Amino acid sequence: MTRSAVLGKDLTGLEPLDADQLRLILDTAEPFKEVSERPIKKVPALRGKTIVNLFFEASTRTRISFEFAEKRLSADTVNVAASGSSVSKGETLVDTARNLEAMRIDMVVIRHGASGAAQFLGDRIRSNVVNAGDGKHEHPTQGLLDLLTLRDRFGKLAGLKVAICGDVLHSRVARSNIWGLTKLGAEVGVCGPPTLLPRDVRELGVTVLPRIEDAIAWADALNILRLQLERMQAGFIPSLREYNRVFGVSRERLARAPKDLLIMHPGPMNRGVEIDSDVADGEHSVILPQVTNGVAVRMAVLYLLAGGSPDWHHPGGDHA
Amino acid sequence: MTRSAVLGKDLTGLEPLDADQLRLILDTAEPFKEVSERPIKKVPALRGKTIVNLFFEASTRTRISFEFAEKRLSADTVNVAASGSSVSKGETLVDTARNLEAMRIDMVVIRHGASGAAQFLGDRIRSNVVNAGDGKHEHPTQGLLDLLTLRDRFGKLAGLKVAICGDVLHSRVARSNIWGLTKLGAEVGVCGPPTLLPRDVRELGVTVLPRIEDAIAWADALNILRLQLERMQAGFIPSLREYNRVFGVSRERLARAPKDLLIMHPGPMNRGVEIDSDVADGEHSVILPQVTNGVAVRMAVLYLLAGGSPDWHHPGGDHA
Amino acid sequence: MTRSAVLGKDLTGLEPLDADQLRLILDTAEPFKEVSERPIKKVPALRGKTIVNLFFEASTRTRISFEFAEKRLSADTVNVAASGSSVSKGETLVDTARNLEAMRIDMVVIRHGASGAAQFLGDRIRSNVVNAGDGKHEHPTQGLLDLLTLRDRFGKLAGLKVAICGDVLHSRVARSNIWGLTKLGAEVGVCGPPTLLPRDVRELGVTVLPRIEDAIAWADALNILRLQLERMQAGFIPSLREYNRVFGVSRERLARAPKDLLIMHPGPMNRGVEIDSDVADGEHSVILPQVTNGVAVRMAVLYLLAGGSPDWHHPGGDHA
Repeated sequence: MTRSAVLGKDLTGLEPLDADQLRLILDTAEPFKEVSERPIKKVPALRGKTIVNLFFEASTRTRISFEFAEKRLSADTVNVAASGSSVSKGETLVDTARNLEAMRIDMVVIRHGASGAAQFLGDRIRSNVVNAGDGKHEHPTQGLLDLLTLRDRFGKLAGLKVAICGDVLHSRVARSNIWGLTKLGAEVGVCGPPTLLPRDVRELGVTVLPRIEDAIAWADALNILRLQLERMQAGFIPSLREYNRVFGVSRERLARAPKDLLIMHPGPMNRGVEIDSDVADGEHSVILPQVTNGVAVRMAVLYLLAGGSPDWHHPGGDHA
Repeated sequence: MTRSAVLGKDLTGLEPLDADQLRLILDTAEPFKEVSERPIKKVPALRGKTIVNLFFEASTRTRISFEFAEKRLSADTVNVAASGSSVSKGETLVDTARNLEAMRIDMVVIRHGASGAAQFLGDRIRSNVVNAGDGKHEHPTQGLLDLLTLRDRFGKLAGLKVAICGDVLHSRVARSNIWGLTKLGAEVGVCGPPTLLPRDVRELGVTVLPRIEDAIAWADALNILRLQLERMQAGFIPSLREYNRVFGVSRERLARAPKDLLIMHPGPMNRGVEIDSDVADGEHSVILPQVTNGVAVRMAVLYLLAGGSPDWHHPGGDHA
Repeated sequence: MTRSAVLGKDLTGLEPLDADQLRLILDTAEPFKEVSERPIKKVPALRGKTIVNLFFEASTRTRISFEFAEKRLSADTVNVAASGSSVSKGETLVDTARNLEAMRIDMVVIRHGASGAAQFLGDRIRSNVVNAGDGKHEHPTQGLLDLLTLRDRFGKLAGLKVAICGDVLHSRVARSNIWGLTKLGAEVGVCGPPTLLPRDVRELGVTVLPRIEDAIAWADALNILRLQLERMQAGFIPSLREYNRVFGVSRERLARAPKDLLIMHPGPMNRGVEIDSDVADGEHSVILPQVTNGVAVRMAVLYLLAGGSPDWHHPGGDHA
């Protein structure tokens, strides 16, 4: 039995995965955490594999996180940014993909502005495809790193109450979290201005928490989404100050919670808008552990898609 | 005898090479094809060599192809794009080159908008220089991958009839193909609007085929060039639709050929302009094998310029 | 005793270093020179270390020089340019830094337009930070490569007279040179239009040489700074031609010197403005050896900050 059969060829989202597959990824990520703590941060798991990071949207943190995940697995990586690419010459995504495959690329990590771009790519090439964010659809490795961080802190996900706060409507992070959390037995709440919540959000099995105070009273953990500043121009919110006044997560608001809440944020943060600095940097914040877990989760995904055994680190495993 | 002596220090074009040198590159590429089919796509041939990819013009496919060729040979590579480089501070190409050499770079792969840029660079530095496309002059590794693809399918090049169709006037791909094919004994025809054929093209020893129907009736293989969309604005052609109507390669036109024609295109394609989709994706298309051969040919060129023996893969060779 | 203790966690400038620390870096650079002359330009000193090159300002030569230094030490490197980064989403430098650290980056090489940016970063993360140029503050590895080049040619620095010519006011290169040279016992002169010399420059312990002829008569070596072309627009100098007429270093001017002067320039050069071509390319120019030394000095800095022993190349050293 190979793991790629277990996980499928691609990781396009968390929606298509079942609870066992999600747990497999999280369990595989555990030992990869330790690799990044070593003086020599490298295992030979993907040596000689070639991976393209195909980023049609700008991203620092996700691209770097994938790139280090790939390098710590000893893969050879090439970065392609949309600007300066054949795309600007009008080439279709499928022609780009077929060309990469013709170069015998093993994997493509794609970020794209169109929902479904990763699936579209994965359906057309034999190489493994990992979705690094596609439009408003999913950002599955962000969802996985959030799951891993929650499991780290609470020991389990079943029964946990997680409130996702902010611009849920436009957020692929929210969607991946909702799928991942509900499949693993957590309860999900969403909280934000009505203009920034999807109309059919209850159909995803989540609780709508109209006010940030409701979210704080209800949840074990808050996952506070970045407010894209362009939402204001587009009229979704009246002003950043107003947004902060009504939905900003502040120390004062948290002080009224019945228990300590875990604070998460996918970054980059708008300090003083959706989250205040003393919350972001406070004792219950796991915003930086989320980033650390991001590398481990991405190593696990790449490793499993490449057909690796989850037992690589044990005596008798791949690299024993 | 070292191969670099045989091939020369640089690869600036196919015009300066003789038939033996061309065959040496194609023969050396053969075993490199197999490296890209391995689970571990890596040979140590250029380990510890440092290569700069110096791209003054945007290019996805050529840059990625070179980068994977370099990485599969275990070289260390650095990419320099024109934007954000010293060039934007007004540094001359020769100063850039001397600086790279002072850093003890082994090789420079250069793409530049000026014809002759690669030669200019090669004359001024001791590092090996590979032309990845210079103005309207040559794109020798594209020419070589076309030769390799034709040889793969037909077994030999001598006597073969290859029609190069489209904007021959502005095409460095066309020029490299004409030099390579004629030196190896193939016959070359060119076909395109009179405004897009060089006035002195017959002096290169090629047959002018005025209509696409003539090319289809004459050739064993069509190499269909990309129509740069800016040619229309510049008045070389009346419209894309008109170009497609008169020179587009369609299934209907090919059906009237006396034999099956091999279909080639250097990419990126304008589907529906110079080539129809059912031709591009049809059974006689070798457009994707061209891309695959591109990596092998570039590995061969880099390897030979570095002084490698063509016998590296044989017992008793470099890496036995 | 580890060297990082000796050198400190970061290299933010030459001002904080003492003479012993400067000599340690120069002495450590010596054997690294030889690595770049080998057929296999690689030592395993930083294998499995992960380094981010975080460049908020464009730079070809410095970025490439660091990148090859890192690769020749076998580190894994990732490049981040300001454009297309989280920075364009308004993320603060400290959040960027904390995120990199959370990914368990070992070192950050930063170039930034704000004086003090490297120190600011270094104070906030545990990873080693190397300043690759911050505003008008310092460019310490450029200063070090200038020191190494002078020591190579003259055997020692004590007592040497070095004139720094040009736009001293805006130059981080000048400041790093002044600190490094004076700490190692050299005498420093500065020469340039009064508008381009810092008002308090004498407080740094340097001699002001009003005319280029004064500098040529006084010095053993000229370090000729690049004249940023935007200084003319900003009114610091009347015109490039006028600048060249009054301060340009020409063969004619050098012919009147009492002795042969060593010619240095940090690049990129404006040939015909601050330096004439026959001087830049003349027999006393060490402009290209400066570039060569840049790689060795950067290898030494990265190696020492990582805790390496200066004896790595000796029998009994790290890699014996």
